[in-house]
Amino acid sequence: MKKHNFSAGPSILPEFTKEETAKAIIDFAGTGLSVMEVSHRGAEFQAVVDETIQLIKEILSVPEGYSVLLLQGGASLQFYMAPLNLLVKKAAYLNTGVWASKAMKEAKLVGEVIEVASSKDKNHTYVPKGYEVPADVDYFHITTNNTIYGTEMFSDPEVCVPLVADMSSDIFSRPVDISKYDLIYAGAQKNLAPAGLTLVIVKDAALGKTGRTLPTMLNYQTHIDNGTMFNTPPCVAIYAALQTLKWIKNLGGLEVIQKMNVAKAKVIYDELDRNKCFKAVVPNKEDRSLMNICFVMREGYEAVEADFLALAKQRNLIGLKGHRSVGGFRASTYNALPIESAQALVDALKEFEANH
Amino acid sequence: MKKHNFSAGPSILPEFTKEETAKAIIDFAGTGLSVMEVSHRGAEFQAVVDETIQLIKEILSVPEGYSVLLLQGGASLQFYMAPLNLLVKKAAYLNTGVWASKAMKEAKLVGEVIEVASSKDKNHTYVPKGYEVPADVDYFHITTNNTIYGTEMFSDPEVCVPLVADMSSDIFSRPVDISKYDLIYAGAQKNLAPAGLTLVIVKDAALGKTGRTLPTMLNYQTHIDNGTMFNTPPCVAIYAALQTLKWIKNLGGLEVIQKMNVAKAKVIYDELDRNKCFKAVVPNKEDRSLMNICFVMREGYEAVEADFLALAKQRNLIGLKGHRSVGGFRASTYNALPIESAQALVDALKEFEANH
Repeated sequence: MKKHNFSAGPSILPEFTKEETAKAIIDFAGTGLSVMEVSHRGAEFQAVVDETIQLIKEILSVPEGYSVLLLQGGASLQFYMAPLNLLVKKAAYLNTGVWASKAMKEAKLVGEVIEVASSKDKNHTYVPKGYEVPADVDYFHITTNNTIYGTEMFSDPEVCVPLVADMSSDIFSRPVDISKYDLIYAGAQKNLAPAGLTLVIVKDAALGKTGRTLPTMLNYQTHIDNGTMFNTPPCVAIYAALQTLKWIKNLGGLEVIQKMNVAKAKVIYDELDRNKCFKAVVPNKEDRSLMNICFVMREGYEAVEADFLALAKQRNLIGLKGHRSVGGFRASTYNALPIESAQALVDALKEFEANH
Repeated sequence: MKKHNFSAGPSILPEFTKEETAKAIIDFAGTGLSVMEVSHRGAEFQAVVDETIQLIKEILSVPEGYSVLLLQGGASLQFYMAPLNLLVKKAAYLNTGVWASKAMKEAKLVGEVIEVASSKDKNHTYVPKGYEVPADVDYFHITTNNTIYGTEMFSDPEVCVPLVADMSSDIFSRPVDISKYDLIYAGAQKNLAPAGLTLVIVKDAALGKTGRTLPTMLNYQTHIDNGTMFNTPPCVAIYAALQTLKWIKNLGGLEVIQKMNVAKAKVIYDELDRNKCFKAVVPNKEDRSLMNICFVMREGYEAVEADFLALAKQRNLIGLKGHRSVGGFRASTYNALPIESAQALVDALKEFEANH
């Protein structure tokens, strides 16, 4: 009985990632030992780290002059670590929701924070546009995809200051021009690996400008200088990430992944725009996330909301309950979700409509 | 062909932990989904976190008034986080090696640090004794086991200030009187779980005294207030930790584990004290670690050191090369190492002696 996993994160990973990781938990690289119990300094695991970083660079077309780091602590720790390393006096932030707000809160411990625009007036159901970013800030911080509200920024902002982005929930879902960013960070638990791994891509030349004495573990330079293994890394999560990266490469890379994601999201959004019982939360089509499709009952159908969750359960549609701050439903359609699952959701939406 | 895994960390874990984790990577708790891809807020994973914390409390006899946290970042991040949360003005540290020195370095970013004693004069091959801890420090920090040099502190220091301990490499190897400590932290990758999980046991009443505004993720109170899931936790590592805790409990708890560890270490140390080719690095028997047994060639046999590594490889003895700062060999004998592996090492030591 196949489950359709729409969880927002941790979320669906490729079968390949699961199978290969399970095998390596028992026997890693023919060592007769588990990937959980081999030295991270050994040749076999060093090869995993090297290949993981090389594939990240290849798949994302990371230019020269950038370092790729495999850290711990999640985007939540990056909310503080990023300003600690990059904020000299002040930084600009785009407030697109809870995660952006959390990032701003930590940055305020380090320096001055300017909120250049906010979508709070409409519960973050759109991406602000037409804002001005002051030319004298150290960086401009964006959250490219907003899991809770289902909005996404599909183009890199055209600004004259360095860009910093939290790409936790859409990295590896489509091509990105890394060269436009001084820093990108992402919790791995959406399109890459199990939770417990944090990807950081940082422009080397952006570092060392604050004059601050940084705690060793919160200094990107520490991790760059130690080949991302200053301390013991989360080996299993890195091993799983490598499998996902191989899967992406074998599919044909991010252009192919993007087409798959566009197709999946279209199936669902088209049905939401048509269905008489449900509607998408985000009205502007250009702001609609390809990763998290938030929807609610249309007017007059609010009373039967719980009935749809019950139907979803019967149809093996998992993780559809919306975030408490938005309500309704959220279908997360990360890379590994097959289009069959998107279709299964559409079938349930149609079935519900037919019965009401 | 059985491998004898003497790696210093990541290190050998119970077969039970490996098998159960591999199963859950494919199908977790009968959900049909992987433990890598289910929501950490779901009932099934919440049950894992609850049981993990409950078993930690039970196995270590954690008293009331303490919180158990499952964090990320390793002991290396705790080196900074501990003083940030506890150091008001000054703290005392016992310098028993590289890890203690690293802890002191980070604490100096926060306040005054007093090194009450150091074993540096003899390359940390003993545990300092007879030192005085000033009565006016905020805490006294120790590293209970020193993986690199093979020393261990088997009794809780009798001091009149709060104790803080890095127990990364000997927690769960024997009973500890938690009530003597304000804070214990431990990277999980020795006796508990794969790397990527950090255990923190903190006395609630010790917190909130510094007057500092702490970064959210570096504040123990954040994690206490959010049931150790302020942000997405390292789910696979926590699941694996739970399996190891079940294994410890099923064996009979830490008294039984301690007896097993004493027996294993005795087999090896006795042979090192007898063998004409090898000797233990730590001369004082009361300071000898039960977790990491460091040894070198005796005088006159230095030239054939490489030959023993070759023999070890032939006999499937893995991870015996000593840390570069000590040289020679290191046999890590963590909980999950069977006594047969200790005996296999002794057999190789004897075989080498017979051939030289």
